[in-house]
Amino acid sequence: MDKICFGIDVGGTTVKLGVFDASRKLLRKWEIPTRTEEQGAHILEDIRDALLGEIEDRGLSMDQVQGAGIGLPGPVTPDGIVNHCVNLGWGRMNVENDLSRLLGGVPVHAENDANVAALGEALYGAGAGHDSMVIVTLGTGIGGGVVIHGKLISGSHGAAGEIGHIPSYRGAKKPCNCGNIGCMEQIGSATGIAQKAVELMEETDWPSALRNCRHVTARDVMMLHGQGDAIADATIEAVIDALGRGMATIGCVLDPEVFVVGGGVSKAGQWLMDALEERFERYAFHACRGSRVIAETLGNHAGIYGAAALALQE
Amino acid sequence: MDKICFGIDVGGTTVKLGVFDASRKLLRKWEIPTRTEEQGAHILEDIRDALLGEIEDRGLSMDQVQGAGIGLPGPVTPDGIVNHCVNLGWGRMNVENDLSRLLGGVPVHAENDANVAALGEALYGAGAGHDSMVIVTLGTGIGGGVVIHGKLISGSHGAAGEIGHIPSYRGAKKPCNCGNIGCMEQIGSATGIAQKAVELMEETDWPSALRNCRHVTARDVMMLHGQGDAIADATIEAVIDALGRGMATIGCVLDPEVFVVGGGVSKAGQWLMDALEERFERYAFHACRGSRVIAETLGNHAGIYGAAALALQE
Repeated sequence: MDKICFGIDVGGTTVKLGVFDASRKLLRKWEIPTRTEEQGAHILEDIRDALLGEIEDRGLSMDQVQGAGIGLPGPVTPDGIVNHCVNLGWGRMNVENDLSRLLGGVPVHAENDANVAALGEALYGAGAGHDSMVIVTLGTGIGGGVVIHGKLISGSHGAAGEIGHIPSYRGAKKPCNCGNIGCMEQIGSATGIAQKAVELMEETDWPSALRNCRHVTARDVMMLHGQGDAIADATIEAVIDALGRGMATIGCVLDPEVFVVGGGVSKAGQWLMDALEERFERYAFHACRGSRVIAETLGNHAGIYGAAALALQE
Repeated sequence: MDKICFGIDVGGTTVKLGVFDASRKLLRKWEIPTRTEEQGAHILEDIRDALLGEIEDRGLSMDQVQGAGIGLPGPVTPDGIVNHCVNLGWGRMNVENDLSRLLGGVPVHAENDANVAALGEALYGAGAGHDSMVIVTLGTGIGGGVVIHGKLISGSHGAAGEIGHIPSYRGAKKPCNCGNIGCMEQIGSATGIAQKAVELMEETDWPSALRNCRHVTARDVMMLHGQGDAIADATIEAVIDALGRGMATIGCVLDPEVFVVGGGVSKAGQWLMDALEERFERYAFHACRGSRVIAETLGNHAGIYGAAALALQE
């Protein structure tokens, strides 16, 4: 029997789990709830129980487990330490050591969840076959990840790919949560898109179907875009402009072969990729032009694939 | 007799040459003029003559030459092609193939000169012992380079590290040569520093010793800084602010362990490193804080060291 490994992706609501064979083929994926009570004290124990159950169901022994990779919603240092995972209730802890101990010594590699998803997309998703990739994850906030020559670039404090805080939104009126002003995620995230639409409705008397929404969402704005709705169109124009500028800035630093756009907002479709690619080209330094903008393909599963790849790296 | 390799750094005025032994120890360095006439048609031939002369002087044969690395003032693709080297008069050419042919088939690796200098500084200079580094070269313009885990990140079009075009200068009044506005090199380069001082003299009636200069240089401004000269102090404040913001943006993407500051402007001294580190910390996303800012140590020789390292890589 070949060895197996586990890919674990910890979110604020659920923990996604995947078991892979030695050739990195996904054998099974499932989810368990994330118990955030008591400062998340039970999260790692729940993961242990889930993995041990899976090992038993497969009639395997612990020495047939090659390792586990785990993605976490916060920065992770190269030593596997998280200083703060707000969504999980965690303070400072060494997740690699703690989970490895719970699993009887199985090697565990921990990384930021956006970085892990980037690695998954790079190796098994939209990035496969491309030599360098920056993933731009447009969700509640904006996350990201950098993969070059098949290797994840984590950063010296685990904070590489924190591209949501690149300044690129020139029309920002309020500071970002981080304290700076004009961060890309202030407008390009789902939250930012909805806020921009609300702001434009307050500032103008342009007619818009969005004025009938009790609670405007990014999805509403995306759906109305391109159909003559003035608020939706102006919002999306501002979103694309800020994202295009931010990607051009990333281009100056890394000149990646592709940008892979993921997260809920990326579900808008191919028009968004085309618009971002056009805007990237407009703002990119001439030597950096020609990078492509493509949509993610693994979606929510990128995390478990990337975590498994992490388990098998080095 | 061990093998040797050559490090070549081509500038608009001189070509710096270095011969290294197999353990990358510098045996000799010298310079030849860069003949830019006739669209730079003789530059590679002059390099060939210099290298063949050196091989003969050492009583060596061509098969004792392991390779050559060459840094060029322009973007270089992963295939070794330059599309345009304005300072040399070159159009599109494959420098790796052309120089290799002139040297009877010796393997040649070509890279952008800023990238090559970054590799030299990373492996043999200020970056030695640090795992990830971004070099910020403050010269006539601003160049840069990215080295992570000992490997140069060149970019998909050879344009990684073009950090001079990160937007970070919020007070810019004119567009940059690149077409965007607010690029870091519009104020942080030697040219930008002098222009900012001139601009402030035109806009204010603040007293300044700079008003007595026929032609204000960055060096003049740097020398007067911190001595109560209002124009010099306000200029440097604006310079440090834009560089700090730009480095914080790089931090969001790569979270490097160190920023190594080089180029003529970096000669200002340790106060500049301290001021940049303080400003980086102020603007950096919280998870990225703690990167250090240090001065280059190899200076003008970084290029030949980096080129030699390139020759010996892979």
